[in-house]
Amino acid sequence: MSDFSKIDSYLEKNMDKSVAELSRLVAQPSISAQGVGLKECAAMVADMLRARGFTAEVMDTDGAPVVFGERKGKADKTLIFYNHYDVQPPEPLELWDSPPFEPSLREGKLYGRGVSDDKSHITSRLFAIDALLDADDELPCNVKFIIEGEEETASVHLHEFILQNKDKLKADACIWEFGGVDHRDVPMQYLGLRGICYVELFVEKLSTDVHSGVGGSILENAAWRLVWALSTLKGPDEKILIPGFYDNLQPPSKRDRELMDALPDVAEEYTKRFGVKKFIKGLTGGTDLKMEEVFVPTCTICGLTSGYQGPGSKTVLPAKASAKVDFRLVPGQMPADIVRKLRAHLDAQGFEDVQIQFLGGEPAARTDPDDPFVRTVAKTSEEVYEFPMEIVPMIGGSGPNYPFVHDLGLPVATAGLGYPDTKAHAPNENIRLDLYLKHARHMARVLKEFAKS
Amino acid sequence: MSDFSKIDSYLEKNMDKSVAELSRLVAQPSISAQGVGLKECAAMVADMLRARGFTAEVMDTDGAPVVFGERKGKADKTLIFYNHYDVQPPEPLELWDSPPFEPSLREGKLYGRGVSDDKSHITSRLFAIDALLDADDELPCNVKFIIEGEEETASVHLHEFILQNKDKLKADACIWEFGGVDHRDVPMQYLGLRGICYVELFVEKLSTDVHSGVGGSILENAAWRLVWALSTLKGPDEKILIPGFYDNLQPPSKRDRELMDALPDVAEEYTKRFGVKKFIKGLTGGTDLKMEEVFVPTCTICGLTSGYQGPGSKTVLPAKASAKVDFRLVPGQMPADIVRKLRAHLDAQGFEDVQIQFLGGEPAARTDPDDPFVRTVAKTSEEVYEFPMEIVPMIGGSGPNYPFVHDLGLPVATAGLGYPDTKAHAPNENIRLDLYLKHARHMARVLKEFAKS
Repeated sequence: MSDFSKIDSYLEKNMDKSVAELSRLVAQPSISAQGVGLKECAAMVADMLRARGFTAEVMDTDGAPVVFGERKGKADKTLIFYNHYDVQPPEPLELWDSPPFEPSLREGKLYGRGVSDDKSHITSRLFAIDALLDADDELPCNVKFIIEGEEETASVHLHEFILQNKDKLKADACIWEFGGVDHRDVPMQYLGLRGICYVELFVEKLSTDVHSGVGGSILENAAWRLVWALSTLKGPDEKILIPGFYDNLQPPSKRDRELMDALPDVAEEYTKRFGVKKFIKGLTGGTDLKMEEVFVPTCTICGLTSGYQGPGSKTVLPAKASAKVDFRLVPGQMPADIVRKLRAHLDAQGFEDVQIQFLGGEPAARTDPDDPFVRTVAKTSEEVYEFPMEIVPMIGGSGPNYPFVHDLGLPVATAGLGYPDTKAHAPNENIRLDLYLKHARHMARVLKEFAKS
Repeated sequence: MSDFSKIDSYLEKNMDKSVAELSRLVAQPSISAQGVGLKECAAMVADMLRARGFTAEVMDTDGAPVVFGERKGKADKTLIFYNHYDVQPPEPLELWDSPPFEPSLREGKLYGRGVSDDKSHITSRLFAIDALLDADDELPCNVKFIIEGEEETASVHLHEFILQNKDKLKADACIWEFGGVDHRDVPMQYLGLRGICYVELFVEKLSTDVHSGVGGSILENAAWRLVWALSTLKGPDEKILIPGFYDNLQPPSKRDRELMDALPDVAEEYTKRFGVKKFIKGLTGGTDLKMEEVFVPTCTICGLTSGYQGPGSKTVLPAKASAKVDFRLVPGQMPADIVRKLRAHLDAQGFEDVQIQFLGGEPAARTDPDDPFVRTVAKTSEEVYEFPMEIVPMIGGSGPNYPFVHDLGLPVATAGLGYPDTKAHAPNENIRLDLYLKHARHMARVLKEFAKS
């Protein structure tokens, strides 16, 4: 512990400077969904890397550029930080207490769009590097940063970027862009992400909406076609009816269940947070609910749109209808295969007229909870957070960890500034500064311990 | 015929004056859906009636006021004109070539919101009355006007108004608010309207939308509940599955089929106008298609809304979902009974969580195609339009004719200024001035002939 006193002291003394750097980064809008400020933000991030003696390149892709940075260190081991400089759209603006791109410090929290997801992760990791360089003039190991600009729009070009730059990206381990503590301030280690296959189903039967008094009995109704097609995908028993959907699933192990069993129950928290009246499939809580949440693939209607949606009545037969549908995938399922099976199913059910637009996807990927790197991250965490890190073998969300795990062959561990009220993707997104400092302290320790391992 | 020369001459000479009066009326917005200008417009209409020696009252209802006007005539027979002073919302404004509430005369057409539906019907009928008074100083029979202000919002309070004022509204026949010519300029007599029962189905399962990665496998999804509930109402074979829905239907008669058979085929026109790829139920055209269009009850999804509906993907599990659904009813079906049966059906299918909001309804009503008044309207029409009026025993749309037919016991005939490109309810709503003059000439003849009958 004692060899971190200089580092910890540096971090405590220089918090204001690092938060000021974060504030400048947050003040630069970088909204990938709207194509706003991406080049400017990439350039700013590259400059931040160079200021720490990193080589930094702003590398083109078919979408937003990826910032790649590298600095050699003492040990011949390489850690990659995966981050993203893009942010969610700030709308609805009227629900923000301070403007989203004017970072505002209130009661130990910094507010602003992207402050949590993901800009504080970038600057707090750079802050840890500053402290290490201050203490030793060199880094304990090689460090690489991959900071992409499309994470909020499904990282569409990241997989290809990684495949095209496999040599450049060689490493031994990866720290993921997010992580955090739970409602008890206990740090969590999230080790797997479900995959996703996001599609829009679209039906168009007429060139114009028609008065329902004219068309109701004789014309094809796009909304009805969509409803009937959707109802063939999944029934009220929640079983997904697409032939082959459940093929080749890799089931959770006994170890997974043990780890899930050790985690707190979520039933009460979800009931409160989301106003849950009942869980589906007869679930009530406990390990079964936690297992179902993450180890089972889904078919979720995320949105429906057709015809008249305003107040009161309008008698119209809609020409068009569409549904946003996401499938969460578990290991063994591949997005392209799911789209093929969906198409075949719709055709077999007589819904050749339902078009499928693929809006993005990635397979699930997992890191072994007993990987030595995971142990290093967990062990160093305990010194900073006081609680042992809780190991979550898999979470229900998705992210582009598949190429890191499967193409670069890395263990991927999470650690970060998230906390239950961080409001990522929502108005009044914020971070807690105490967690900012803790993350920097944790990252400095990870780098040193990893170098020794 | 000769006794109409003075009347026709008056009408031809005074067109500008009547169109100016219509323009003033159109310039007064009266948007029932938005509660804009209704009292002002009602007052203006009452003044127009008084200017012709009518007693005119602006009568309160629980909604927009009804203007009632009455003037005695020579014969002891009473004709009611049913009209409405309210109009559809003008949106989308950007699609208008001239501002909707600044009437604009271009190439023999007058443009403006409500000019066709229904303000020109009010002023052209007053214009006919002007001509009759100019010729004879008195009306040939008693005339009453019922001019309501909620026709565009389902005439919610009209039925009650009629029931409460049955004595005041006593009459022998009624001319409906609309009518018109088809694409060949042949005048049409529309004799029945389907009923309607308009509901919104609403599901709310959570207090907030939830990230689909979290909730997809364990939380109730409002959009799925709605889709499953809807799919129990009607299947791809178009058969409505609500028990009792088809009870007590009064089927069309042999005479109805003869009349429908005499009307032009609609298949080609609809194919062109609506971009129809195929008609449902294997229909291809001819009398079967025409019969199906109007004599069969429907269940139409008019709108669907839930969750994320913007561009691209958003991974959200929606807390709420709703569908607008209209049922077109044929004689024998009553709206309240349909709502009861729908509720019972949803409950029986396990969808107690799907709420039904009743947004308005009225039963179907028909007038005998061989009623003497219908013959009078058709016969007088031929003098003006050169073609014999074509008799349509029933149309697919709905309107508040039930209380006129069933509570006041009147034959209801249609006649009016509509034509295929009149764009009622759409941007650039317009009337043809040649049809305006013809309607006034026709109405003057109807009043005189009706008085003699």
